[in-house]
Amino acid sequence: MATTTKIEKVPEPTLRRLPWYLSVCRLLKQRGEQYVSSTRLSKETNIVASQIAKDLSCVNIVGRTRVGYEIDNLLEVLEDFLGFTKIHKAFLFGAGRLGSALLNDSGLKQFGLEIVAAFDASPRVVGHSVAGIPVYHINDLEAKIKRYNVKIGVLTVPIDRAQEVADKMVVWGIKAIWNFTPLRIRVPENIVVQNTSLYAHLSLMFNRLDGLEELSGENEKLLK
Amino acid sequence: MATTTKIEKVPEPTLRRLPWYLSVCRLLKQRGEQYVSSTRLSKETNIVASQIAKDLSCVNIVGRTRVGYEIDNLLEVLEDFLGFTKIHKAFLFGAGRLGSALLNDSGLKQFGLEIVAAFDASPRVVGHSVAGIPVYHINDLEAKIKRYNVKIGVLTVPIDRAQEVADKMVVWGIKAIWNFTPLRIRVPENIVVQNTSLYAHLSLMFNRLDGLEELSGENEKLLK
Repeated sequence: MATTTKIEKVPEPTLRRLPWYLSVCRLLKQRGEQYVSSTRLSKETNIVASQIAKDLSCVNIVGRTRVGYEIDNLLEVLEDFLGFTKIHKAFLFGAGRLGSALLNDSGLKQFGLEIVAAFDASPRVVGHSVAGIPVYHINDLEAKIKRYNVKIGVLTVPIDRAQEVADKMVVWGIKAIWNFTPLRIRVPENIVVQNTSLYAHLSLMFNRLDGLEELSGENEKLLK
Repeated sequence: MATTTKIEKVPEPTLRRLPWYLSVCRLLKQRGEQYVSSTRLSKETNIVASQIAKDLSCVNIVGRTRVGYEIDNLLEVLEDFLGFTKIHKAFLFGAGRLGSALLNDSGLKQFGLEIVAAFDASPRVVGHSVAGIPVYHINDLEAKIKRYNVKIGVLTVPIDRAQEVADKMVVWGIKAIWNFTPLRIRVPENIVVQNTSLYAHLSLMFNRLDGLEELSGENEKLLK
């Protein structure tokens, strides 16, 4: 049963798991399935079934005995709750390597994020467009933010400009910053910051992989 | 004092914070500074100074009274420990929107990841190259993995192919998977998986932003 009653604050670990359930539902729908049990969701996500039931009850979804959850309903509620059905306009700051890559990733729009303009300071890119998205000079931010109704800024500048650009974003009314720089930026309390450092994730992966190789090296020694 | 003695397993929360210290050090070095205190690191990262000292002692870095940490030494130890000084070769699977974006992000190489080839099944991309990187048919994986010495796979296929492609990667000897799909993939225990779902991060940001707007809406009501 879809519900529009207000959902209380959902704990962050639950929020992190919801997109996984959504992905499984999308997959099963593609395959023509109509219902999914928490056991099946558990198998597909490696999360225990009781946790799944608890997570879904946070967004007011309750399964039915024997049949489980209705996939269409799950999709509707999760997409809506996760903000993927509404388009959120955003500005991107820093049209360098990673920034241009994100401008080229039209997949973001499917998940509710539309980058409507980019800002940079380099004459190499200012005045041009990347993947059809105009790149303006950072000094034009004030004028542009009045024209577009934008609350989200994607931060992909080099680390030596990150704090300065974040400060400008806040001054001109950006409320949420998606920070791709490996720097922690300092912002007022009422500003949302989502850190997504690809490099931090890379180092975690390298570290685990090295640990694995050391381990298998030791095993080989033991076998000799 | 730089040290090459073996470092014991470092806890994951520490591992997640180390790239932040590295970024601050890079920034300060650019500005010509030689030493950094844990107080300064604390100010720049919003992490308490005692935690920073603890984290750095995990990688055998100890500060000196009054002067703090030597920046060159910190850079050297952190870059080495985080795996950024060594080039790790990788294959990318799925040269679609996000995949192509990552192939275009030459910044990854600076952080130790070199994507040497991509795989896809679509005749639209197979046989071509993206940002100078060749795209092969997924069926050629066996032959190519023997030619290149690759242990890391970057997974950027659509969700309905994610598990199948992950299975292939494991069969042919990939040891670590950087999973950009919003799906949890199932792999044997000895395989490293690093999940980086941009969409999960997006939904966290949307959710916090919406919470903020509701709150300010309520405040406005209160003010009326």
